Amino acid sequence: MAKLLSEIRHNPLLWLLVLVPVVFVAHSLRPDAHTLLFALSVLAILPLATLLSLATESVGAKTGDTVGGLLNGTLGNLTELVIALTALSSGQYMLVKASIAGAIVANSLFMLGASFLLGGMKHHVQEFNRTSARLQASLLFLATIALLIPSAVAQADGAAAAAFTEKLSLGLSGLLIVSYALGLVFSLKTHREFFAAAEHGHDAEDAWPMGTAIAILGVVTVLVALVSEVFVESVQQAAESLGMTPAFVGFIVVALVGGAAEMASAFSGARKNRLDLSVAIALGSASQIALFVAPVLVLLSYVLGPTPMDLRLWPGAVLMMLIAALTAVLVTSNGRSAWFMGVLVLMVYIIFAMTLYLLPPGVQ
Amino acid sequence: MAKLLSEIRHNPLLWLLVLVPVVFVAHSLRPDAHTLLFALSVLAILPLATLLSLATESVGAKTGDTVGGLLNGTLGNLTELVIALTALSSGQYMLVKASIAGAIVANSLFMLGASFLLGGMKHHVQEFNRTSARLQASLLFLATIALLIPSAVAQADGAAAAAFTEKLSLGLSGLLIVSYALGLVFSLKTHREFFAAAEHGHDAEDAWPMGTAIAILGVVTVLVALVSEVFVESVQQAAESLGMTPAFVGFIVVALVGGAAEMASAFSGARKNRLDLSVAIALGSASQIALFVAPVLVLLSYVLGPTPMDLRLWPGAVLMMLIAALTAVLVTSNGRSAWFMGVLVLMVYIIFAMTLYLLPPGVQ
Amino acid sequence: MAKLLSEIRHNPLLWLLVLVPVVFVAHSLRPDAHTLLFALSVLAILPLATLLSLATESVGAKTGDTVGGLLNGTLGNLTELVIALTALSSGQYMLVKASIAGAIVANSLFMLGASFLLGGMKHHVQEFNRTSARLQASLLFLATIALLIPSAVAQADGAAAAAFTEKLSLGLSGLLIVSYALGLVFSLKTHREFFAAAEHGHDAEDAWPMGTAIAILGVVTVLVALVSEVFVESVQQAAESLGMTPAFVGFIVVALVGGAAEMASAFSGARKNRLDLSVAIALGSASQIALFVAPVLVLLSYVLGPTPMDLRLWPGAVLMMLIAALTAVLVTSNGRSAWFMGVLVLMVYIIFAMTLYLLPPGVQ
Repeated sequence: MAKLLSEIRHNPLLWLLVLVPVVFVAHSLRPDAHTLLFALSVLAILPLATLLSLATESVGAKTGDTVGGLLNGTLGNLTELVIALTALSSGQYMLVKASIAGAIVANSLFMLGASFLLGGMKHHVQEFNRTSARLQASLLFLATIALLIPSAVAQADGAAAAAFTEKLSLGLSGLLIVSYALGLVFSLKTHREFFAAAEHGHDAEDAWPMGTAIAILGVVTVLVALVSEVFVESVQQAAESLGMTPAFVGFIVVALVGGAAEMASAFSGARKNRLDLSVAIALGSASQIALFVAPVLVLLSYVLGPTPMDLRLWPGAVLMMLIAALTAVLVTSNGRSAWFMGVLVLMVYIIFAMTLYLLPPGVQ
Repeated sequence: MAKLLSEIRHNPLLWLLVLVPVVFVAHSLRPDAHTLLFALSVLAILPLATLLSLATESVGAKTGDTVGGLLNGTLGNLTELVIALTALSSGQYMLVKASIAGAIVANSLFMLGASFLLGGMKHHVQEFNRTSARLQASLLFLATIALLIPSAVAQADGAAAAAFTEKLSLGLSGLLIVSYALGLVFSLKTHREFFAAAEHGHDAEDAWPMGTAIAILGVVTVLVALVSEVFVESVQQAAESLGMTPAFVGFIVVALVGGAAEMASAFSGARKNRLDLSVAIALGSASQIALFVAPVLVLLSYVLGPTPMDLRLWPGAVLMMLIAALTAVLVTSNGRSAWFMGVLVLMVYIIFAMTLYLLPPGVQ
Repeated sequence: MAKLLSEIRHNPLLWLLVLVPVVFVAHSLRPDAHTLLFALSVLAILPLATLLSLATESVGAKTGDTVGGLLNGTLGNLTELVIALTALSSGQYMLVKASIAGAIVANSLFMLGASFLLGGMKHHVQEFNRTSARLQASLLFLATIALLIPSAVAQADGAAAAAFTEKLSLGLSGLLIVSYALGLVFSLKTHREFFAAAEHGHDAEDAWPMGTAIAILGVVTVLVALVSEVFVESVQQAAESLGMTPAFVGFIVVALVGGAAEMASAFSGARKNRLDLSVAIALGSASQIALFVAPVLVLLSYVLGPTPMDLRLWPGAVLMMLIAALTAVLVTSNGRSAWFMGVLVLMVYIIFAMTLYLLPPGVQ
């Protein structure tokens, strides 16, 4: 508990925790103040995501590399998962899908690009582990292919096409989860030596005791779920009154909010010249969402959602995911980076964000 | 002859040769038992393809590297060519095109992926000749572009578009054959030192005498043609009664049957830690189909087919070919492989197969 | 002046300067002889482009590396810019866009491929600076993405879509120019050591004196503008009577004419085994057009054109640009080249040219 308080004292982001009760109070007093509730819930999710990430790492640090890796591998995107689950159970499938695609793009472009830029502004040229980065980028590229197939093939409408897309999405979800599990076996068991650099993420000394960590993990997950409910409820109307398109909200806003905690780690790694760590977080997180979070959401939609959710996205989102994966492959194949590489990758992200921001409703 | 019998004794796949006469007997007795004839003809093609491949290699081993390379370069996909020619002369252009596209995808995903997986299950990390793999992958990528242009550009229907597609396909076929011939000059003459590893394929000691080899080549080609006729005649109705879509049959079944012999060589190379050989067979065979078999079929359609055949494919097939070529480029750029790389590449192939299997008729 | 005359004596291309007055005389005597005027103006632009390029390099050589680099970076494609401006001010937006896309494709396929081929016919294997080539290719790839977004997203028609495309094109143009400026800072200031090889382009000894160079720059720019006017006026009707489609004229003819001077330098570099120089010219020029010329034309269309021009291209042009950029990435990632690489890259260009040549009007 003392450790938690000291952590809060040193990490200004955690001061925002004070907004968590404020969200609930505001929601019960003014349930129609959508824009206010939207802003408050975004700001309240940031420190919760940070705590979740710290707690996952602490449990990981205490349980040894394999179990820890497994935990990070499944809970590393817990915030994204909880937000998406909330949207899923309220039937907002468009928001769920946009936030999945957006999170993949945000991780592989924004997080990677900003890491290159922030690191490159301090260090002339930075090197990173090519082999590991290439494997992550390949994994991401191949996962993207799985996600784009339903959208690419099922152009036709009608009942036959809908049944086809549903069956295909279910089958693909199974394949993706199997690939993901085999990937964990590969990176944590048979070929762990290739992934050495990524281990630096959690230092056992700074970690919280096991009990605290698990308690925090539980409590904070519930809090994220509750705040997410307010967030999901208010996001559409708030976006409208702020002049943002629904595509922009799901793809950009939700994705950046959900990934804030990992971004903080990736950026701090880049500035400390540990770009290996930043690349591993960015690409690892992106492929985790594609290979694990997305199919889990499809499967859970059969239990939690009003109807089964498929993996079909609008064509623009597919194109952006594909470009993001190709860009990640391209910029990491070298094993070196300088600030301008970061500018270029960020520029692609800004192009996407601008396009979605300007997109007239109904064109997506 | 003694050599041939000893070969048959040691290679269980060749025992299936007994099915060749069975196919012809069954076809004359029960010409409407489509499913039975389909199954028998598939099983009978496998040993014939193996013999064809052994005979080609034997002739190659006796005639020296350049002529041998040339023979392998033109007859290496003789089985695919004969099956496609049979389908061509009966006017089944959709089947011809699906089997071309499917063969390219099967070679660059299934054969490559399974080689990585089988090799990787025995050896921790395998290395292969990057320069040669990159050249093959580039060749394949560029051939894929030529094949996708007619489909990408000629979206419009109508007489003008049809005439345009026909002229374009003819021109592209000429360009592809010229590229292929120049590629043979490059790999067999001016820059043969880059392709050294692929030479190991045929050992002169084990080779059959010249006369035997040429006789087998002739007899077996005729047999493949005859069995193919039964196969092509029965495949559509058999597929229907087995619940397979026509796209699945052409793209997956025909392609795997036609390439079975090379796959056996590639997999055995991978397990013997000669991954160079496997990569050379997989990518070499894929680019040979794109650069040589496909344009030859277009040209022969003017002589053998009811109408000229163009190179226009359905959009899904184009996308799959493009993804297959990009995946091949991506996974071979490293020059190293481990089992999980194989899993990923196979996964892409399974995704394609699943999509085609589920595809409702009429959507392709 | 003596230097200029000696230059003209040694460079047969410059003898074509005699055609410049011939163009103006022919235009005033026979304003309807479109095919003649087209041929004459093409032949007259070639020596003017060469002079422009020599003058820019001379000014660059005298002013030191940074200013020189900046000049080359902004005036290096002055011919393309002037031709496009002439077409822009006469409202021929289709021609402007085709010539932009065509110039990118011509530089990254034709110029690069022919350099590989010409160099490779003299030298067995040629090496070039991978790091610099990769950066240029990445820059080109990312610029291509920016250019394809408006076409990919704005499929829908109607007033809302048109307003969206216009706003988006304006925003993207701003982003591209900022990226380009930052790229100049990177290559000329913070990380100039990576780009050392490209410096060899201009030798201070051979350069003209400052005064001559600036005078030539001014006079020749005006001449190019005047000849371009005749060219743009005659090109459509000449193309029609020569049986060329408008797409072919803009994409292939105008692009090759505009880039002739740089091509001459790139090819001569390749034959002298300075492939670094050829790659830097080809990719540098392609990304300069994408990142600088294209957005400048969009911005100037608000001042000079009848209506604002957007960045929306026809789908075939987008596909060709994307394939060209991917091909450039692929073939330069190795840092080595042989003649067959050149054949392959040229083949892609020939495929594009053939497609555009055969394209029935109205299908583009």
